[in-house]
Amino acid sequence: MTGARFPLDALGIARGFARGDFTACEVVEETFSGIESGDRHVNAFTALTVQRAFDDAAQLDARRAGGESLPPLAGVPFAAKNLFDIAGITTIAGSRVLAGNPPATSDATLVRRMREQGAIVVGALNMDEFAYGFTTENHHAGPCRNPHDLSRTSGGSSGGSAAAVAAGFVPLTLGTDTNGSVRVPASLCGVFGVKPTYGRLSRHGTFPFVASIDHMGAFARNIDDLAATYDALQYIDPNDPACSARAIEPVGAMTSRRALRVARLGGYFDDHAGDDAREASLAAARALGADDTVDYPDAAAARGAAFLISAAEGGQLHLPTLGTRYDEHEPLSRDRLIAGALAPAAWVLHAQRVRAVVRKRVLELFARYDVLIAPATPVVAPRIGDEFMDVNGQRLAVRPNLGLLTQPVSCIGLPVVAVPMRSASGLPIAVQVIAPPWREDLAFDAARRLEEAQLAWCAPPPALLPVASGGAQ
Amino acid sequence: MTGARFPLDALGIARGFARGDFTACEVVEETFSGIESGDRHVNAFTALTVQRAFDDAAQLDARRAGGESLPPLAGVPFAAKNLFDIAGITTIAGSRVLAGNPPATSDATLVRRMREQGAIVVGALNMDEFAYGFTTENHHAGPCRNPHDLSRTSGGSSGGSAAAVAAGFVPLTLGTDTNGSVRVPASLCGVFGVKPTYGRLSRHGTFPFVASIDHMGAFARNIDDLAATYDALQYIDPNDPACSARAIEPVGAMTSRRALRVARLGGYFDDHAGDDAREASLAAARALGADDTVDYPDAAAARGAAFLISAAEGGQLHLPTLGTRYDEHEPLSRDRLIAGALAPAAWVLHAQRVRAVVRKRVLELFARYDVLIAPATPVVAPRIGDEFMDVNGQRLAVRPNLGLLTQPVSCIGLPVVAVPMRSASGLPIAVQVIAPPWREDLAFDAARRLEEAQLAWCAPPPALLPVASGGAQ
Repeated sequence: MTGARFPLDALGIARGFARGDFTACEVVEETFSGIESGDRHVNAFTALTVQRAFDDAAQLDARRAGGESLPPLAGVPFAAKNLFDIAGITTIAGSRVLAGNPPATSDATLVRRMREQGAIVVGALNMDEFAYGFTTENHHAGPCRNPHDLSRTSGGSSGGSAAAVAAGFVPLTLGTDTNGSVRVPASLCGVFGVKPTYGRLSRHGTFPFVASIDHMGAFARNIDDLAATYDALQYIDPNDPACSARAIEPVGAMTSRRALRVARLGGYFDDHAGDDAREASLAAARALGADDTVDYPDAAAARGAAFLISAAEGGQLHLPTLGTRYDEHEPLSRDRLIAGALAPAAWVLHAQRVRAVVRKRVLELFARYDVLIAPATPVVAPRIGDEFMDVNGQRLAVRPNLGLLTQPVSCIGLPVVAVPMRSASGLPIAVQVIAPPWREDLAFDAARRLEEAQLAWCAPPPALLPVASGGAQ
Repeated sequence: MTGARFPLDALGIARGFARGDFTACEVVEETFSGIESGDRHVNAFTALTVQRAFDDAAQLDARRAGGESLPPLAGVPFAAKNLFDIAGITTIAGSRVLAGNPPATSDATLVRRMREQGAIVVGALNMDEFAYGFTTENHHAGPCRNPHDLSRTSGGSSGGSAAAVAAGFVPLTLGTDTNGSVRVPASLCGVFGVKPTYGRLSRHGTFPFVASIDHMGAFARNIDDLAATYDALQYIDPNDPACSARAIEPVGAMTSRRALRVARLGGYFDDHAGDDAREASLAAARALGADDTVDYPDAAAARGAAFLISAAEGGQLHLPTLGTRYDEHEPLSRDRLIAGALAPAAWVLHAQRVRAVVRKRVLELFARYDVLIAPATPVVAPRIGDEFMDVNGQRLAVRPNLGLLTQPVSCIGLPVVAVPMRSASGLPIAVQVIAPPWREDLAFDAARRLEEAQLAWCAPPPALLPVASGGAQ
């Protein structure tokens, strides 16, 4: 179908579909049409699941026609980072090494959850190989480009997931975050992202990177969509040992209006923030009535610990093929993986102890505050291929340091909502809204207040892309 | 007081004290008198807490005189491996490196628990340095000798704890078990020992060895004493992150008479068992009606994993002083610790993965069986200084291999009761009664049946020691 105009947001699509404004097949058709015309510029998708999407859409159309009650995300297209199993396509995790594997025979738990809520998977998304990187400059699939400036990086490792939402290809995507892989691309692409508490969302059916730090997450254009997705994904999954048997805590319909106690993170988080980042953090803190600026305990040590553990656990995981198929591994990460695998055990064990100490000290902060505010990235999106960036007068390597501000937080498993903000440079940059473990509701509450204060980035998909047909937004 | 005769078992002392047969001060006096005359031969104690013991005893005597109701272990003397904090003495963990530390200012959680139950701590016990060894051939304190043959080792690393009970110095002791450090000395000294599920007993206030495998445990002369001690020790301690918030499950008064499904472990456990060990295992299996002999999945891999992880985690812990005070470290373990600390991280991470796989496979075995039976040591007590032992025609180094049969079990955290048995050689050897996680009750049940079948070793303290005044036994 052509000429149709659909809302750009997920809940708008679900409502329109439920009302009968359009069919699910029409949504899917326009979705693929948008991807076809726009993604040649962005390179967010590495595979499309056309047949499966139309089959799912036809089923949903039939269910609606039959008068069945529809699940909350019925008719909403989504896509997943290509480390999620999607039945029918190979889970490549951004690598050439896995490219010859047979297609997945079943969906990852989170893909299944989305489908059960009525969402329709349309494809798999570009990423840094094995999730090890912050720029999605993937040497096999090519770089994923930032929809707001195609010369710039989308961030990573879930770059395709953030870019696909920013470009308006789909309203929802799934990603993962070990060291910042949801929050960094959300920041650079100007979309909302959530990295819940470690253990909250099932990792079953996804290709791992660092088992002791890997988190699942999601991206959306606004906080309502993100909350609805987070609610859809929650499931106590016995197949993921870290997926704790905590109660499921919906936040989508949350209407908390109590006073939030908010502090802004200074010190390390100011020292490693450029002007755009610091201004975003200050603006968010002001909007949330934060008077205090506090130090995050041992931020640099926590970041170092995350770095070491990631290299070592990732290196251990891939050591067999690093030894036999070195040339097929991503040039940007293969040597770091080998170095990590061969690091002395004492370093890595010390890093694990550091995590425990930092966690204990940070939890004490949460006795005084409900949420903490910090920038998500030191700078707005660097140009693709840039090796260095300037942060507060420090010349830092881009690729390892885009996660400077996210690593200290994820390495102790705290839930974070990344809220994209406007910046003086005209490009988006996000703040992290950081909550205590299992209190995603507090992070969503604060994020919603920032959205309501009209501080959040809400640019429509860039006009340079011929995909932005959404008019109901 | 002189000439008094007390029961040798803990519950016998508690009953006698409660009845007024003797005072707690009399018990303490005779206890120290026994240690003074006998421990010059055994070398189980490294410190005595005389003043404190008499103070506690006087308090208990006053409480009894005042008609107060008495806790279950009132008046029972006990001692703890010298890695438990005991207020007033330095926690040396068998090492010269810690010998200059100030005295502990409070008791370890388990020492406190024992005291709350009325037990009286009389001293600290010899061990392998930093719990890294199976023979308690401590170069600083001297070897702990086996009360049944003073030329032989007591086993380790909780050698002093097992020997003190075997010699009749005290009816109860506390020890720890990472790779077999309760079960090995229980086997060689002919006493009962329990190593509960990983996380069951608090480690707060103890000097660690391998945080991911360290267990607390206890020794006693019979199963009722051991069960009463285990019940006394249980406490959900927020100060130990591994001390899980499982319900406390008393086993002391357990009267389960249901049919137990029992299997004997063959394969690896027969291959690494000498005649005495295999005979003990067969006798226990027969007494428990076990028809099946089964393989413990990946036993050798599990043992290798435990070895690597222990060396690496222990090495990481001690690396600072290994670098600066090498000469003061135990010659038998210092080089192994350094090697472990410097092992490639990938090896240790792989070992952690092996643990997870083995655990999953072993848990499947427990769908069919309530308890599994295996020998605790390959042989009876070797002579002190022996470097090699013969096991089924294999010439194996004694010191690392006394734990061959215990390591595959502890590295996945299963609860075990070690039941000492008689052997053709005239020396004791124990079987491990292994239960599923959190089912200590099943292990105690089977152990009690073995005791009732009169299979368990129950020799009185050896006559060569002038300490065995106990006549009520």
